[in-house]
Amino acid sequence: MSQSRLISIEQDILAKNDAFAAANRQLFAAKGAFVLNLMSSPGSGKTTLLVETLKALKDKLPCAVIEGDQQTSADADRIRAVGVPALQINTGKGCHLDAQMITQAAGKLGVAAASALFIENVGNLVCPAGFDLGENAKVVVLSVTEGEDKPLKYPNMIAAADLVVVTKTDLLPHLDFDVAALVANARKIKPELAVLQVSAKTGDGMAEWLDWIAAGAAQAAAARG
Amino acid sequence: MSQSRLISIEQDILAKNDAFAAANRQLFAAKGAFVLNLMSSPGSGKTTLLVETLKALKDKLPCAVIEGDQQTSADADRIRAVGVPALQINTGKGCHLDAQMITQAAGKLGVAAASALFIENVGNLVCPAGFDLGENAKVVVLSVTEGEDKPLKYPNMIAAADLVVVTKTDLLPHLDFDVAALVANARKIKPELAVLQVSAKTGDGMAEWLDWIAAGAAQAAAARG
Repeated sequence: MSQSRLISIEQDILAKNDAFAAANRQLFAAKGAFVLNLMSSPGSGKTTLLVETLKALKDKLPCAVIEGDQQTSADADRIRAVGVPALQINTGKGCHLDAQMITQAAGKLGVAAASALFIENVGNLVCPAGFDLGENAKVVVLSVTEGEDKPLKYPNMIAAADLVVVTKTDLLPHLDFDVAALVANARKIKPELAVLQVSAKTGDGMAEWLDWIAAGAAQAAAARG
Repeated sequence: MSQSRLISIEQDILAKNDAFAAANRQLFAAKGAFVLNLMSSPGSGKTTLLVETLKALKDKLPCAVIEGDQQTSADADRIRAVGVPALQINTGKGCHLDAQMITQAAGKLGVAAASALFIENVGNLVCPAGFDLGENAKVVVLSVTEGEDKPLKYPNMIAAADLVVVTKTDLLPHLDFDVAALVANARKIKPELAVLQVSAKTGDGMAEWLDWIAAGAAQAAAARG
């Protein structure tokens, strides 16, 4: 297959995605919902972070979750156990969520007024970066077990991020991991990038993360007018 | 874009890949080279494992490495520092290595007779599973920090694996991680799957891994005749 044909196919796929993303964005804005797209490597601790986040948030504002995985409904089951509505999308061989999947999932789940909707993307530090879902914020989760070089190796993901959350900080005493080096590498790609550090296990840093979400949710609700 | 057009495009891409993979396989067999395709999430410790592996192997048989990353030549630099030839492929926005990239890289690096060639794929537990590179063995690396559920969530990768290597076992005392559950989950996808456990940091389990490579290399060299 020629390079030019491949580029034209990629453009077709992204144009279709962008049309659904724009529709999602209009729906979310009309509802005053704050929508986060959480992206990371497999095993960075996204679901554990989400479970602890929802325990703290669910009595303060309406929350819902869309879970993306190649297979299993394990993550949606974990979320529902907290008492928050969740819908699982299985992508099969697919490597990312796309905007049309979110349109369909949001239709099934419903989007509550002045709510927070968390989208947990397929664990993949490459492909999800290219697909706008119509979200308010792209949050990239990097765990301290992954190495400080990841922002340089996966620059498209970092360039797309609105926030980086560094997870599993409780493991730092057992690792040769330099958080300052990770942050410096991320800011080589995106100079003003905001970075938070959390341990969902000990609760360290959770207050700042919850404040960040609350601020985004307040802004989205206010913009609804 | 219609589903049937997408399927036809996927078939075109895979057919082209398979033609290059078949050519690679012939080249590797003619040289009696043992070729491993290492796949994992970002940050599973593939490069660290490879560095320790090469230190132990390089005086026993000729070794070479092809490194895949979206950006940076950091991994190839780490390999060359050990005294082993390495070639870095930057995939840019691409999410996996394909067989044509390996044809070109093998041409530049050269393939020594009765050697071991390690291909470190882009860190991604989804897309690389679908692309045959013409290798002798697909090795899936899973670190103990990633969670026991990964085989069920990324079943295509496990189904493609000839061996799973569980890394970073030195961290087990600090984690709630059940290696037996990980192995059981992997064997739900592929019942006879071989699994090794290693810590590149302490050296635990390295002997079994080096034996596994030596056996494969001896078999490949013998098949050359």
